[in-house]
Amino acid sequence: MPAVRNALIWDTGRDRAEYGDIVIKDGYISSVTAPKEAEGPILYDCKGRCLVLPGLVNAHTHVSMTLLRGLGEELPLMEWLQKKIFPIEDRLTAQNIRSGADLAVMEMIAAGVTCFADMYYFMDEVAKSVLESGMRAALCRGLPGDNADKLAENLALAEAYNGREGRITVQLGPHAIYTVPRPALERIVAAARDKNLGIHFHWLETKGELDSLRNEHKIEPADYLESTGLLGVKELILAHCVWHPTDQLSAVARDNVTFVHNPKSNMKLGSGYAPLKEFISSGVRVALGTDGAASNNRLDMWDETRFAALLHKGYNLDPTVAGAREILKMATVNGSYGTGFRDAGFIKAGRRADMVIVDMDNPRYVGCDPGNVPEFVVYAGSSRDVRATIVDGKILYKDGEFMTLDSEKILAAASRDRGSLTR
Amino acid sequence: MPAVRNALIWDTGRDRAEYGDIVIKDGYISSVTAPKEAEGPILYDCKGRCLVLPGLVNAHTHVSMTLLRGLGEELPLMEWLQKKIFPIEDRLTAQNIRSGADLAVMEMIAAGVTCFADMYYFMDEVAKSVLESGMRAALCRGLPGDNADKLAENLALAEAYNGREGRITVQLGPHAIYTVPRPALERIVAAARDKNLGIHFHWLETKGELDSLRNEHKIEPADYLESTGLLGVKELILAHCVWHPTDQLSAVARDNVTFVHNPKSNMKLGSGYAPLKEFISSGVRVALGTDGAASNNRLDMWDETRFAALLHKGYNLDPTVAGAREILKMATVNGSYGTGFRDAGFIKAGRRADMVIVDMDNPRYVGCDPGNVPEFVVYAGSSRDVRATIVDGKILYKDGEFMTLDSEKILAAASRDRGSLTR
Repeated sequence: MPAVRNALIWDTGRDRAEYGDIVIKDGYISSVTAPKEAEGPILYDCKGRCLVLPGLVNAHTHVSMTLLRGLGEELPLMEWLQKKIFPIEDRLTAQNIRSGADLAVMEMIAAGVTCFADMYYFMDEVAKSVLESGMRAALCRGLPGDNADKLAENLALAEAYNGREGRITVQLGPHAIYTVPRPALERIVAAARDKNLGIHFHWLETKGELDSLRNEHKIEPADYLESTGLLGVKELILAHCVWHPTDQLSAVARDNVTFVHNPKSNMKLGSGYAPLKEFISSGVRVALGTDGAASNNRLDMWDETRFAALLHKGYNLDPTVAGAREILKMATVNGSYGTGFRDAGFIKAGRRADMVIVDMDNPRYVGCDPGNVPEFVVYAGSSRDVRATIVDGKILYKDGEFMTLDSEKILAAASRDRGSLTR
Repeated sequence: MPAVRNALIWDTGRDRAEYGDIVIKDGYISSVTAPKEAEGPILYDCKGRCLVLPGLVNAHTHVSMTLLRGLGEELPLMEWLQKKIFPIEDRLTAQNIRSGADLAVMEMIAAGVTCFADMYYFMDEVAKSVLESGMRAALCRGLPGDNADKLAENLALAEAYNGREGRITVQLGPHAIYTVPRPALERIVAAARDKNLGIHFHWLETKGELDSLRNEHKIEPADYLESTGLLGVKELILAHCVWHPTDQLSAVARDNVTFVHNPKSNMKLGSGYAPLKEFISSGVRVALGTDGAASNNRLDMWDETRFAALLHKGYNLDPTVAGAREILKMATVNGSYGTGFRDAGFIKAGRRADMVIVDMDNPRYVGCDPGNVPEFVVYAGSSRDVRATIVDGKILYKDGEFMTLDSEKILAAASRDRGSLTR
């Protein structure tokens, strides 16, 4: 059986890394042995100089927005959306969605991301990109307004792709409280329960949403989540949560609920910052996401972990907040659980063989040892050190080469489509 | 004359980039021509697919602290300093300082940094690392307490290295108000004036410093800078400035004064955040720095630009704050001026040939065009795209190879020294 050989292995939830070989069978880790003990073919030889982490999970994004990167920089949110983003989104074709998704998948694979949660439209195209590239993803059709056709489209996506190759989950995607009337949201929740699907929802990204719940809907956030039935669906991804009140966290500290923290996008759009310290202390599961490339502007989870770790120390004037070990869990296993892949997120026997191999033979890692891996990864690490990205035991990226993608073709298609959209 | 050929060139202070060739003579840019027009040898052929920026300047750091990276993570500042940092600093040898400096220089060169401002001790060793590597730097001996020997050491450093090869300026390095008594500071200022040297000073990094000025010294910050004579020295680098009052900025909006913003270190140590929006609107020159690798933990100016650009949008709940064009100036020409190299910082005839060449042939730069270069660099860019780093017209790093450094030797020496320090 193939093995990743002689690596310094970080197994989420343990206190130390250990050197060893990771033996893979049928897409799963079958055992972790002492270093250089595994027999059979070598999938990647780390030679004692690479670190292996569970694959990074980008738990909230809109991948095809890579085609909109850099448009309308430094504009206030509503002006940005209405003058720059919406007019172009109105013109996006299925082909654009595919070329933007391919570009994003290429960027993420080269940065050690193995799984992402996406909300957009023409999602069949994103599903094809996922299947062909070898990545893993949780997909949903964004559902603004009260629109039976779009819900039908999301359900058809589930019918076609939920569970495909064990690499796709399909969720339903009500857009946000400011675009979805409550009765429509309740119909989506009913459909999710009926089909046993998860839901992916933008939640309290801006203060205006909190104000509208309180002033127009006359309801507190936790009560809204409870009374609409959202808290009862299979998995619930709540993206952003910037303005979720800190006294209403016990209601969401549930095994089926994942808050996704998107610190860079929230900062860039001037939306504010989520109270991560309180999320952690309340036991809410928090994952990390980049949001779309038009508001980040990178799909790089290394950036996201560092922002999350540093921001909340600064806000709280307290260097003990948002520790590297907690942040690394957010970027890996918490995202795996949130996206519905509960058998990923760990480097141990019986788990899916999703992992990232990181070169330590560079200035950033001098001083890294089995006792301080998460601190080096989060504070000093960089996607430039990613040597290989593996999903289901299959190498998607290795030493600068893409194994499943034609990178030149993808860059050419994306450049062409970007040009046609902005001309 | 050698030329960087067919590049998309960003010349600080202009509104657009332009394609062209950069012709170099005796360490200076002699002309910028139309693309593919320059004759003579090709220093680097960008083939229309690379961007050229002025070299990045890390305007406040302690390079040899790369050997202390990852020690005492997530501790409160004083506990971190007293339990982890100071005991090891007491034991650092000249050889350690050299191996830490070499490691830092290697990390910075590979990330497009051409110049840095450093405060530490055994600074002859740092000077040797600068001279051998080909980098540019402003160096000072950190001066805590009231210590005539250390001041003499700093002055001897100036005697030996100020102006060497046109690549080193030596400044005096009074450490901070909490370590330097006022009379000692005034003696340092007098020496700086006498020898026409700049000063590099830690300024109001923590709230405690502001409190001590007001409560013990009974003086406001701007008055302290004025009355000690600090504002009258050749160049004054004030590092951090987190707690500089926003109503006392006009006094420091002077051509010889540079505030250095270190957002990541300030966040990581929980020191707070500098009011960058007000610095900019008051006309204070602001440069960017990483601080030492023990409190960042990277020496990557791309990270620093992105943190600076995003943080202040988030703090101010306003996406128009800290625009990419202003941030890119901070990371380049403002640092050049602060470190005393007033003939660097621009890609135009008559300026020093310090530059970084950046690959645009990757997913991050799809959509980048002559009109939006700073936005792509700051929001989407990454040190992983650095293809070459050039100082005084000499290539220090090219396509992954170091031209002036023995990277294996440096990594081995730093690993050995780190091991000996933490055993």
